[in-house]
Amino acid sequence: MAQTAEAIRDPYPTRLQQPHEPIPRMDPVVHARSDRRWDGPLDEVALSRYERDGFLWFEGFFSQERMAPFFSELREMARDNALTESEQVIQDPSSGRIRSVFGMHEISENFDRLTRDPRILGMVRQLLGSEVYIHQSRINDKFGFQGSGFDWHSDFETWHAEDGMPRMRAVSASIMLTDNNEFNGPLMLIPGSHHWFVPCVGETPEMNWKESLKAQKLGVPDKDQLAQLASKGSIQAPKGPAGSLLLFECNVLHASNENMSPWPRSNLFFVYNSVDNKLDEPYAAPVRRPEFLGARKNTKPLAMHD
Amino acid sequence: MAQTAEAIRDPYPTRLQQPHEPIPRMDPVVHARSDRRWDGPLDEVALSRYERDGFLWFEGFFSQERMAPFFSELREMARDNALTESEQVIQDPSSGRIRSVFGMHEISENFDRLTRDPRILGMVRQLLGSEVYIHQSRINDKFGFQGSGFDWHSDFETWHAEDGMPRMRAVSASIMLTDNNEFNGPLMLIPGSHHWFVPCVGETPEMNWKESLKAQKLGVPDKDQLAQLASKGSIQAPKGPAGSLLLFECNVLHASNENMSPWPRSNLFFVYNSVDNKLDEPYAAPVRRPEFLGARKNTKPLAMHD
Repeated sequence: MAQTAEAIRDPYPTRLQQPHEPIPRMDPVVHARSDRRWDGPLDEVALSRYERDGFLWFEGFFSQERMAPFFSELREMARDNALTESEQVIQDPSSGRIRSVFGMHEISENFDRLTRDPRILGMVRQLLGSEVYIHQSRINDKFGFQGSGFDWHSDFETWHAEDGMPRMRAVSASIMLTDNNEFNGPLMLIPGSHHWFVPCVGETPEMNWKESLKAQKLGVPDKDQLAQLASKGSIQAPKGPAGSLLLFECNVLHASNENMSPWPRSNLFFVYNSVDNKLDEPYAAPVRRPEFLGARKNTKPLAMHD
Repeated sequence: MAQTAEAIRDPYPTRLQQPHEPIPRMDPVVHARSDRRWDGPLDEVALSRYERDGFLWFEGFFSQERMAPFFSELREMARDNALTESEQVIQDPSSGRIRSVFGMHEISENFDRLTRDPRILGMVRQLLGSEVYIHQSRINDKFGFQGSGFDWHSDFETWHAEDGMPRMRAVSASIMLTDNNEFNGPLMLIPGSHHWFVPCVGETPEMNWKESLKAQKLGVPDKDQLAQLASKGSIQAPKGPAGSLLLFECNVLHASNENMSPWPRSNLFFVYNSVDNKLDEPYAAPVRRPEFLGARKNTKPLAMHD
């Protein structure tokens, strides 16, 4: 079958008019090349698991005490009207309470330092095989009995379509600020789904992100394709105490359910992108999204904080 | 404090204009009186657990083979237009697919026999301390990626308010027709919550059941009271293969989340009521609900099927 010019230009076409079969991933999962692969800090067992599943789970990576100041700082931010009324703060579609805050590492020194924690940064550099910068930081909050879920999606699909991220060479570090348990809407992932790019149907409207951050309507994979991937890879939902860490590949399918418990769930996300994978123009959207969703200015390689 | 005439007449007031503290349960949990309590089939360990938690879980109670014919029969019912267009069939509010079918034991001999299974009936008679009849039967279906959840509620609150069930002397037997796992929206319960009656706010409109069976708006406990009960008793979600059985007390608080997996979840519910607890007029609703929601005609004691 002859490829169209479009497909040759873009290996990951999406926001299409017609459904399209999942496309095999064309990028490595672990980007450190052979001679550097075993430099650490991750060993071959961890690297192979990351290649297979698309994520690594570190239960209790940080102490709960280390997490407490971040939680207090977020509570303070919630009381800062100028901030909560800004575009960086997204409200929950049903309860109206805070759902997400973007760009904390730009406004808080504590969060900035955490992005440069040597242990996280070491692993991320190894996985991405290069220096890295923060593409996006955010916190997702789910209050007790209130927090809505997030439908199944690949982050890369959105970052590629709407932010112009060229290739799959980014990783998210999610740090749990509260316990994540079976009932407060923990992150669910489909192991192995990062091996496939699932093109999505629907043209991206101009200000899509204003709606999509509340409840995603575009960039949602076809249910049958999703069912096939989940039937093959099953579903996992890592659970653990505050301070636990999840590293997940930018293209792994993930979702989370409503919080039906009284226990709040608050997870921090730092998205690390390779300095060799900086943003182009959006591949499937009319305009760029704001800086706090996809960094273009502050892309200097991160230096470790000691 | 002097009780009002209303409170003397009705020990479980609900659908109130003002919020009201939870009221301690006034009925026994195990109704078999002392001299009959140890007649079996449940032993004292099980009875004490049921008194403490409000439910008993029997993983793999029936073989999966025994369940298969019921699943096929339900699939046939789904193709029966006269049935699916009747009031006994409730559509999912978001997907439009079948959410619940009521009264299967009235239309199917297989289901009728299952309600009279000696092992179930033996346990239920012991828990209720009398002969029993079917107050309501239903199946709750959640298709993959589609089934909406059920908010936290006590069944007794609705049956008392809208059907006139006088006292807490009923038990639900829920039989899993499919696997119930962490991701397909299993039933969640708050252990110990059956010791409290949580009065709910809001007047019952005339045809409330037409909406409430799709998404419950009335008879929903106050979030703070719910949080207190869940913080004390925590939350449990029994999981297991098709054929597993859950017996739960009519006043235990329960809920279920959306099915975010590709795996359907189909659970059967038989509600057994004591023949000494037959329905009065509704305690907090203008009119009776239909027969398939609260039986008034067919209340003869069930005979065991061998």
